[in-house]
Amino acid sequence: MRNSDARYAVLLAGGVGSRFWPQSRTLEPKQFLRLGRDKSLFRRSLERIHSLIPAKNIYIVTSPLYGDIIRSETASFNIPLSNLIFEPTPKNTAPAIALAAKIIFDRCKDEDASVAVLPCDQQITNKNRFSLLIRRAFANCRDRFVVFGIPPHRPAMGYGYIKAPSKGSFGPANILRRVERFCEKPDLKTAKKFLKQGSYFWNSGIFVGSVGVFLSAIRTHLPLLLKQVSAAASAEGEEGLASWNRIRPVSFDYGVMEKTRNAAMIPADGLGWSDLGSWQAWDELQRKDKNSNLLLADIVDIGSRDLTVLGREHLIATIGLKGLIVVDTPDALFIADKKKSEDVKQVVDILKKKNREEHFCHVTVKRPWGSYTVLETGPGFKIKLVEVLPGRSLSLQLHRKRSEHWVVIQGQATITNGKGRYRVHKNESTFIPKGHRHRLENREKTILKIVEVQTGASLTETDIVRFQDSFGRTKPHQFISESRG
Amino acid sequence: MRNSDARYAVLLAGGVGSRFWPQSRTLEPKQFLRLGRDKSLFRRSLERIHSLIPAKNIYIVTSPLYGDIIRSETASFNIPLSNLIFEPTPKNTAPAIALAAKIIFDRCKDEDASVAVLPCDQQITNKNRFSLLIRRAFANCRDRFVVFGIPPHRPAMGYGYIKAPSKGSFGPANILRRVERFCEKPDLKTAKKFLKQGSYFWNSGIFVGSVGVFLSAIRTHLPLLLKQVSAAASAEGEEGLASWNRIRPVSFDYGVMEKTRNAAMIPADGLGWSDLGSWQAWDELQRKDKNSNLLLADIVDIGSRDLTVLGREHLIATIGLKGLIVVDTPDALFIADKKKSEDVKQVVDILKKKNREEHFCHVTVKRPWGSYTVLETGPGFKIKLVEVLPGRSLSLQLHRKRSEHWVVIQGQATITNGKGRYRVHKNESTFIPKGHRHRLENREKTILKIVEVQTGASLTETDIVRFQDSFGRTKPHQFISESRG
Repeated sequence: MRNSDARYAVLLAGGVGSRFWPQSRTLEPKQFLRLGRDKSLFRRSLERIHSLIPAKNIYIVTSPLYGDIIRSETASFNIPLSNLIFEPTPKNTAPAIALAAKIIFDRCKDEDASVAVLPCDQQITNKNRFSLLIRRAFANCRDRFVVFGIPPHRPAMGYGYIKAPSKGSFGPANILRRVERFCEKPDLKTAKKFLKQGSYFWNSGIFVGSVGVFLSAIRTHLPLLLKQVSAAASAEGEEGLASWNRIRPVSFDYGVMEKTRNAAMIPADGLGWSDLGSWQAWDELQRKDKNSNLLLADIVDIGSRDLTVLGREHLIATIGLKGLIVVDTPDALFIADKKKSEDVKQVVDILKKKNREEHFCHVTVKRPWGSYTVLETGPGFKIKLVEVLPGRSLSLQLHRKRSEHWVVIQGQATITNGKGRYRVHKNESTFIPKGHRHRLENREKTILKIVEVQTGASLTETDIVRFQDSFGRTKPHQFISESRG
Repeated sequence: MRNSDARYAVLLAGGVGSRFWPQSRTLEPKQFLRLGRDKSLFRRSLERIHSLIPAKNIYIVTSPLYGDIIRSETASFNIPLSNLIFEPTPKNTAPAIALAAKIIFDRCKDEDASVAVLPCDQQITNKNRFSLLIRRAFANCRDRFVVFGIPPHRPAMGYGYIKAPSKGSFGPANILRRVERFCEKPDLKTAKKFLKQGSYFWNSGIFVGSVGVFLSAIRTHLPLLLKQVSAAASAEGEEGLASWNRIRPVSFDYGVMEKTRNAAMIPADGLGWSDLGSWQAWDELQRKDKNSNLLLADIVDIGSRDLTVLGREHLIATIGLKGLIVVDTPDALFIADKKKSEDVKQVVDILKKKNREEHFCHVTVKRPWGSYTVLETGPGFKIKLVEVLPGRSLSLQLHRKRSEHWVVIQGQATITNGKGRYRVHKNESTFIPKGHRHRLENREKTILKIVEVQTGASLTETDIVRFQDSFGRTKPHQFISESRG
């Protein structure tokens, strides 16, 4: 089958950024944050590309850690589950892109089909301009990469640069420029020179090319990688996993783009683009009040200026602060000089070294069936508030080291407990002894809330034996999801 | 009975200061805070005076709100419960001192007995010097007030001043000075003049005099007040309360000391005195690390200076802060420029106006039997962690609008539930239906911990009918506690 008009998108959604800690966590990285908006960056990225490309042609490469979030965020777009590609371990962008290109080609057998590879943790406010530029890129990518270069407005050190002088313009209405070279992140002096010189653009990480362009460039510049990725994708279970694990991590910029001579750039001005690389970068894009404050919290402030506060249901009082950002979450509070907020990465590194949990997940953990919040832990006990969505159920499971008391505080629970199965109504409770197989189900049309008091010598999330699960969590790793069901 | 050597102390412990919010609350004011030390200001005040005066002669005037704390703090000193004097409503210091002087006189009938009236929310680090000066004051107070004047070291506007020039020295070794006048809190210009002039001292609020000196000065300058106080103290229940409520609030400084000509001052240098009038005042007395930080929290800091953080079991990360104080509590977070921390009073006023609870009490509420912490509230439910001290029990009670699920997570509970009485062991649970009389007892030698899940239409602390209580909470107001039992 050949269809040179076919268009595909690959969203790279596997990043584990720590720059928005404490809102971002390993289990909830930047792309899934709302950051004061109504939708996550991932979802906004998906909406942008969905208006250009049919759902069946949108692929998402991500980590198994984000399977639940991705399945839930993509459900309303009708993106096939078989388009969700899971990297068993992160290997940077080149293996992710190679894997997606390989899978797309295996399915469409069309080297001329166009593919747009897109990060999904950036902000782009001008959606029409974005659509226009993507269409232009598609129209010109059969034989080359077309990359998006953002005209710089400050000597940023945090980006790679693309050198593409205006004298190298070509194509219809001169919309393309020949790429002279890709440059790694510069020091400040070099960045200033780039800015002054005028031929340098920020590398947005948006790459468009035909399937053939992608595969042949990878074959040329990373031949071993392509073999390893193909082996991993075509093998089952443990064998595929082993192939993947042998891959050496490398970025697509470094491994392919810096080496290819086959790239053009579209000057992507007017997108309202930001990579939101730090709290400060995000903060600069927000609308402030007359004192230059942004106070999204339950807050009493007296006389602060240039203050940004992201809170929760927890009172905050501030007096006379200036130039600070405060981010409060149930288990961690962050207060920083805005100009130094990038150092949050150091904080996260320290937390990792100390084996703390606050970099890994929030106290409220989302699950495919709903969520749970740890309210309190102490020696021998843990108290959780568990919410189960209508029609969902937890896996049939048992715990070897703990028993559980459940009090229903909202809705109605259907409970499997050992050999029994019964209903527990609001204001009733039940007891799950240690070692009993049990399952919590919500067969009603409203949310079920229970308070769970766990008691036992060991109270870890790993003390769980799953027998049946509606979300495929009893199976080993697979690169591609099964169909939704 | 006359005994001119008798010595008494009256601790004024009814203050409802808001300057240490969010650590201080209406239910836990400044005098009961530890502020980073092992003992509260109240307890340290009590220890200082207890080394000079027998327990049976120490009186404490306070609010019924603080009955539980005062009873618990004074128990190990063997202060008779009949020495605890409860003001039904706060009326400032003159009524409190008049009431204490009246009660002491009624009991000892000794006008020559000496009385030291002391605030108990100040810091005094030199205990020996304090004892020496109090003894000197006692030795010279039969016919006059002796007040403590603190030599000022800055032009403070927050204190009243005493003018007592050195040419007015008299007494053995010239330790006393004639007081020329008491001055109200000055403006900055006047405060600077006072400091330069050299005859002015800060009014510490420590007054020493014989019972006769106190009573006759009050009779002379506030004759109506003395009658109202006497009427209130001698009447029972509602009638006494009504008399008290008619009293016009007035401070002892304004109502008596500014008018009397019968006062001498002891220059009270070398006490290590501070009234801890603000977070900043407290902060200046603390020992700091090499970056001038004081970080009493679970904290990761990168590059802050002159930062003070008082935290709890909750991670805080700070980057590049300077000159700030951060106080984190389970339900309220305070971040202020140290120099503006006095404005916290404005925050508390705003909270009061908004009918918020965060100025009134902490999420962990101390009770005579132990404490409870509200972990979570939501529509129709409230989850508490309840701790009962060994040998203590809650009142026999019932709730009209809620039922309660109890799960024992530590220790063993003895439970009265309707007509039944039974034990609940660790990892067992029980259910208290709405309207059931019930009682929770800890008859063991270790702390009992239970998780309580309340469910019902109304979940307020006022939905309680008490039948029996070990702590006298079934009775109406009395000015003086009954004996301990």
